Amino acid sequence: MKIAVDFSPAQSHNYAVHIDALERLSFSGKVAIVTNPKVAGLHLKTLLGHIEAKELYIITVPDGETHKTLANVEYIIENLLNHRFDRNATLIAFGGGVVGDMVGFAAAIFQRGIKFIQIPTTLLSQVDASVGGKTGVNNRFGKNLVGAFHQPSAVYCESAFLATLPSREFGAGVAEIIKMAVTFDAEFFAFLEKNNLHETSHLQNAVARSIAIKANVVAQDEREAGVRAVLNYGHTFGHVIENETGYGRFLHGEAVAIGMRMANALARKLGYIGDEEEERISTLLRSYGLHFSYPVANPEAFYQAFFLDKKSLDATIAFILPKGIGNYTIVKDAPKETVLEVLQEFDR
Amino acid sequence: MKIAVDFSPAQSHNYAVHIDALERLSFSGKVAIVTNPKVAGLHLKTLLGHIEAKELYIITVPDGETHKTLANVEYIIENLLNHRFDRNATLIAFGGGVVGDMVGFAAAIFQRGIKFIQIPTTLLSQVDASVGGKTGVNNRFGKNLVGAFHQPSAVYCESAFLATLPSREFGAGVAEIIKMAVTFDAEFFAFLEKNNLHETSHLQNAVARSIAIKANVVAQDEREAGVRAVLNYGHTFGHVIENETGYGRFLHGEAVAIGMRMANALARKLGYIGDEEEERISTLLRSYGLHFSYPVANPEAFYQAFFLDKKSLDATIAFILPKGIGNYTIVKDAPKETVLEVLQEFDR
Repeated sequence: MKIAVDFSPAQSHNYAVHIDALERLSFSGKVAIVTNPKVAGLHLKTLLGHIEAKELYIITVPDGETHKTLANVEYIIENLLNHRFDRNATLIAFGGGVVGDMVGFAAAIFQRGIKFIQIPTTLLSQVDASVGGKTGVNNRFGKNLVGAFHQPSAVYCESAFLATLPSREFGAGVAEIIKMAVTFDAEFFAFLEKNNLHETSHLQNAVARSIAIKANVVAQDEREAGVRAVLNYGHTFGHVIENETGYGRFLHGEAVAIGMRMANALARKLGYIGDEEEERISTLLRSYGLHFSYPVANPEAFYQAFFLDKKSLDATIAFILPKGIGNYTIVKDAPKETVLEVLQEFDR
Repeated sequence: MKIAVDFSPAQSHNYAVHIDALERLSFSGKVAIVTNPKVAGLHLKTLLGHIEAKELYIITVPDGETHKTLANVEYIIENLLNHRFDRNATLIAFGGGVVGDMVGFAAAIFQRGIKFIQIPTTLLSQVDASVGGKTGVNNRFGKNLVGAFHQPSAVYCESAFLATLPSREFGAGVAEIIKMAVTFDAEFFAFLEKNNLHETSHLQNAVARSIAIKANVVAQDEREAGVRAVLNYGHTFGHVIENETGYGRFLHGEAVAIGMRMANALARKLGYIGDEEEERISTLLRSYGLHFSYPVANPEAFYQAFFLDKKSLDATIAFILPKGIGNYTIVKDAPKETVLEVLQEFDR
């Protein structure tokens, strides 16, 4: 005997990302703002000016990637249970990607899923982590190995919160913006070449454009079965760089920027972009301080590290490469020698 | 500025429940069977006769509701990471509801979601927990407070695995079958009155019918926004009984059976069923040993406990009551005095 269980409509709800449009958020149920001490010190007062709630709780988690753990997610959930939060409660993630990923995951698994709102306070999390519903934590085996897909009910990106961002963190966020332009949008790339993002109106435009690209990608492919993988342009190389340097030397976006230059060199060798296009991308990265030198000490070891990351028996590496500027290609059969050449020659 | 993130198609896949149809399960990727020592001792050999896998792992978790914890889910996940499981791996939950809920949750959050198969070995988990995608764990604050909705990719219900079930556990499973019949299917109820489920062919039919009802309900309402709540017939009272008796005295299905009799008494007082229908349900329950006496020591405390369970500020209690046999009604405005009367008179 066999019984079919047929699901009809979508689980994931639609939602909106608001750019510099945070006015008043009113809640009838319980609300918890989860933040870190640094963001709380700088911006909590401002945020509270926008919040109207019958019962408001503030939960503080430590700052930094090493604290993105299941233990801290449990800490958030224990706080909610202590205060008798129920399924109608809302969490607000107020901070960078670490806070966003943990709060999203806590919201995903508390009572099998409650609502949460993203209010990202770094450029990187505004253009990248806050949209798309990837949530999760790290453990001793690696990054984001435990998590869930759980979409926020709304995202608010405020440029005011970016005013206090250290310049390297700003640059690391711009790297992800450039990534979007190179792989998806030639016109946007030209815009970035012409306009300095330190000016607020240009930044607003660039954040909006990046998010629109990402929103379009994740709406097509929430679970990363296809096109969503293109968002990993620069990341295949970047992850190895982060691993080799122990996550201490470069910010994520900085490692991705180096990874993009490696991917570009491979794309040039394989005939997907020309010298001039490669140079235009490098120039744009350089103008935001994203031109760290990274000569590869051991190309063979670097190459093998791609496969460690894949964790599977017979893995192939899919390189996301630019195809001209504004388009991408996914190359699964790049010859090992060509990749080694790229690594050998890189930044020499 | 505002950017829409629009999701189109469904996240949850369709799947099938197979009754006594387990033949050969073949896997090209890694597979882990998660089970408990009791089930492994009785039935693992049989199951292994049906499994063909390139790499097979067995993970054993302790038996019993007190072990349905996040720590044990982490233990499962650490095992997977130690053995370098990736997103293409499959978990098989082989045991009762505790194993099923934990394995389902581990599958939900490992690498943001991998496949899992339910092979339930108790009648209760065959007809109830294995279908519908509710996964989760308990903590010191209560049951199933942390979890996710994650549908299995297939469910296999084998009557052979039920042969070793202690008679009380069998009865507790029948309680949930009767629950389905009373609220959704008069013809099925008549079938149960006529046919003894200790005979395998009748049991197969009853399991199939129960699952078909549940499958239909959860496909309509995966996230329990509406009709899925009807599956809680008997549970509103039953949970209080389980709490009052510290989860030691009654099996879950036994407490639900008492709860169904309380709900029936309320339904009779409110005019939704007659004396005769109430008696028919009691008679059927009694024939499977489900007629535990439960005089309520303190009706007022029992009543207040409904609200503790709700965890919210201004909760109302929705009583799921039979409306005749084979239909249900949801009563949100039952007068407190009437409920107290029911509790006062119950089993005196």
